[in-house]
Amino acid sequence: MKTQAITVDFRNALSKHVGKHGVARDKLFALQPRIDRYHAQLCRERASGKLRFADLPHNREYPRAVSALAKELIPKCRNFVVLGIGGSALGNIAVQTALNSPHYNLLPQSQRKGCPRIFVEDNIDPDRFVALLDMIDLKKTVFNVITKSGQTAETMSQFLIIQDMLKKKLGRSYNKHIVATTDAKGGFLRPIAEAEGYRTLEVPDGVGGRFSVLSPVGLLSAAMAGINIRQLLKGAADMDKRCQTASLKKNPAYLCAALLHQADTRKNLHTVVLMPYCDALKDVSDWFRQLWAESLGKRLGRGGKEVFTGQNPVKALGTTDQHSQVQLYVEGPFDKIIAFLAVDRFARTIKLPKTFSEVEGISYLGGKSLNQLMHAELQGTAIALADAGRPNFTIHLPSVNAHTVGQLIFMFEMQTAMAGKLYGINTFDQPGVEAGKTATYALMGRKGFEKEKRRIAGRIKANHSDRV
Amino acid sequence: MKTQAITVDFRNALSKHVGKHGVARDKLFALQPRIDRYHAQLCRERASGKLRFADLPHNREYPRAVSALAKELIPKCRNFVVLGIGGSALGNIAVQTALNSPHYNLLPQSQRKGCPRIFVEDNIDPDRFVALLDMIDLKKTVFNVITKSGQTAETMSQFLIIQDMLKKKLGRSYNKHIVATTDAKGGFLRPIAEAEGYRTLEVPDGVGGRFSVLSPVGLLSAAMAGINIRQLLKGAADMDKRCQTASLKKNPAYLCAALLHQADTRKNLHTVVLMPYCDALKDVSDWFRQLWAESLGKRLGRGGKEVFTGQNPVKALGTTDQHSQVQLYVEGPFDKIIAFLAVDRFARTIKLPKTFSEVEGISYLGGKSLNQLMHAELQGTAIALADAGRPNFTIHLPSVNAHTVGQLIFMFEMQTAMAGKLYGINTFDQPGVEAGKTATYALMGRKGFEKEKRRIAGRIKANHSDRV
Repeated sequence: MKTQAITVDFRNALSKHVGKHGVARDKLFALQPRIDRYHAQLCRERASGKLRFADLPHNREYPRAVSALAKELIPKCRNFVVLGIGGSALGNIAVQTALNSPHYNLLPQSQRKGCPRIFVEDNIDPDRFVALLDMIDLKKTVFNVITKSGQTAETMSQFLIIQDMLKKKLGRSYNKHIVATTDAKGGFLRPIAEAEGYRTLEVPDGVGGRFSVLSPVGLLSAAMAGINIRQLLKGAADMDKRCQTASLKKNPAYLCAALLHQADTRKNLHTVVLMPYCDALKDVSDWFRQLWAESLGKRLGRGGKEVFTGQNPVKALGTTDQHSQVQLYVEGPFDKIIAFLAVDRFARTIKLPKTFSEVEGISYLGGKSLNQLMHAELQGTAIALADAGRPNFTIHLPSVNAHTVGQLIFMFEMQTAMAGKLYGINTFDQPGVEAGKTATYALMGRKGFEKEKRRIAGRIKANHSDRV
Repeated sequence: MKTQAITVDFRNALSKHVGKHGVARDKLFALQPRIDRYHAQLCRERASGKLRFADLPHNREYPRAVSALAKELIPKCRNFVVLGIGGSALGNIAVQTALNSPHYNLLPQSQRKGCPRIFVEDNIDPDRFVALLDMIDLKKTVFNVITKSGQTAETMSQFLIIQDMLKKKLGRSYNKHIVATTDAKGGFLRPIAEAEGYRTLEVPDGVGGRFSVLSPVGLLSAAMAGINIRQLLKGAADMDKRCQTASLKKNPAYLCAALLHQADTRKNLHTVVLMPYCDALKDVSDWFRQLWAESLGKRLGRGGKEVFTGQNPVKALGTTDQHSQVQLYVEGPFDKIIAFLAVDRFARTIKLPKTFSEVEGISYLGGKSLNQLMHAELQGTAIALADAGRPNFTIHLPSVNAHTVGQLIFMFEMQTAMAGKLYGINTFDQPGVEAGKTATYALMGRKGFEKEKRRIAGRIKANHSDRV
């Protein structure tokens, strides 16, 4: 494990190296007693079954059920479509992008080890959904409907549409084309699944959507694409070992939590940019955005006082965003901290030929590799940011594989759990999304929401004086 | 044009409706005299040829040259690969995503009107580049290398690789597989293109990368995919007409500029989230991110004083991000303004069947349409944000087509030009990216950068005490 371990280099985040907008090293490590206390709390919560996400890397039943189901389904299907949103989609997408070819769905099936194409439909845009349904052969397609409650409006709408289409097209045996990943006992989808005879998997109790990627929610689509889910879980379990200590000098998850909390609350670095220098990791940023925003963006502190916390997570990609966002990061307001993801070794190396070596402006490239250029650009950008007084730090992955991605996922999850303690909020709820749901139900005419409908009627009237 | 015109509804951004974090209506319109003055400046700059991007919608030569070239190339190629980064890629991607099927590259060629698959390679990740090269038949591929200076390290590296591969595989006729979009006379790529006999297009003088999508930079890939580039330009020209007045009550670009400037500088809404409720528009957000960040993120004001300006642009997507970011937007810090993009009419309508109508929790969906749900969720989210005191506004597109997308692009460009005036900075330069380039050159061993190499040597040494 040693050489395949993720490490965090936080030198460029420290005031000693980037000046007054950086985090003071002594202040950072002065958090250790608080971290010790919160670590003890987390350990107690875990022991009493209140931190279920942390147990997922060690669960043996889930990967067994998932692998068995994938083994059965793969030979029968050409398309595997996840119907899910938020925590039921972002982890699936992140893992696919990280561990499969960027052109996976374009490859011939033989080059996909016989695995189906994978689609994660995480929106209800009608034009997008029609475009998919127009393109796939339903007879060779399996849909994985993922919703714990069975009342996620977007996912259940998609389900109603495909259930109807499948049944009309395939008759009674349509039920073999749906896998329901839902609550083990409750909710609205479980009884439908049982009555109709769908294959089912469990969304574990006590694991919120944004912490569920290592459960059947995220594992089935991975297994369907031939990803080694045991290595993914092994990576997470190895990171879990490193998270058994509270020491900021040894536990990378807690170090990142403390660093970002200090950055946000003491240095007004209210935005954290997650910027992998690696295309495969770009959708890990989207998954992290949910984890960080939904967990820490809270109105109320634990005592019931209004606190309005939450650092703003932003997705970026190197080198691409050097030509889009770095101007702002280098010269704009001092309100950001950049978290780079560096991949020390790519799978492939591409040499740059020495053609046109007489042309000044490109001659220095010949004989080098694209890999060298990628590393030099990351280092160059980190140095330029530091020189401009902009805090940044780098999370190093030795390479990108199921084991390192598993580590990264679990590290971010534990980092978020610790950050929630530091902010003094409830990491695991999301009360702020209820108001929007209520208004949507009212607008859609759901029973019981008549009063809300009357309340918001004035709000939705056109108003020409405030329209251009 | 009337009914196909984009409109902006800014009611929910006003303090009257969202409380103290909203922009005061009278303060907003009190900006009119400044806007008048800046409008006059912009008109003068335009008349003297210093605002070239604004002339692009009216240029007849570019679309003619692009269409002719596309007509010639389309029958000969199966893959069209753009090699470009930043302003040479984001516009291309935005237009493709907006106006083609979300699964365009997966469709059989017959369903693509005989047009080739389109790839925009805007990074140098070696694994991504190999994955593409492994998959395409070079004999049936045309590469469009886009760089004005011919010394963009990423693009020229890609060029060196594909030039070498093509020449080895195809011999002298390899030159028919490269189109160089570059400076009309100068730079490092122009002489290579002429010596080797590539087809060429022009990157216009005086148009920065981020303002170049309506030039041959963005138009060729669009035309290669069968997109109606004349309608795109017509939409931009129609928006240009609306931008001839300085009146905030009539000019949507200036209204948005004034609104966002007030939001950022008077209300501490330092982040603007661009959140289309439409998958097709999601990459317009990425293009806008560059436009807004690189234009307004500046250290120096016009007088040479340090100002460190720049609002932080964030990409989001509805409904998807309701399940990821909206918790933070509703309950987190009061530092964001949300700009929704609403599509009043999608191309297709999907009805929701009344199946499982006995199941409470989903029965309200039956008989409605996915389109209704999409609209209700946008309205519900806007109301919930407003009720929580969070400013937001909505840009309405009657539908998504080349004409409305052209309007949107030009609106954002003029909005940015006016915002630059309000911030008092140079909208069109990007001095902050030089330091990173210099460090990269040094690390890559480019001649003339030896001093920089010595300077940064200490910076890149491993330091184990700040590493976990």
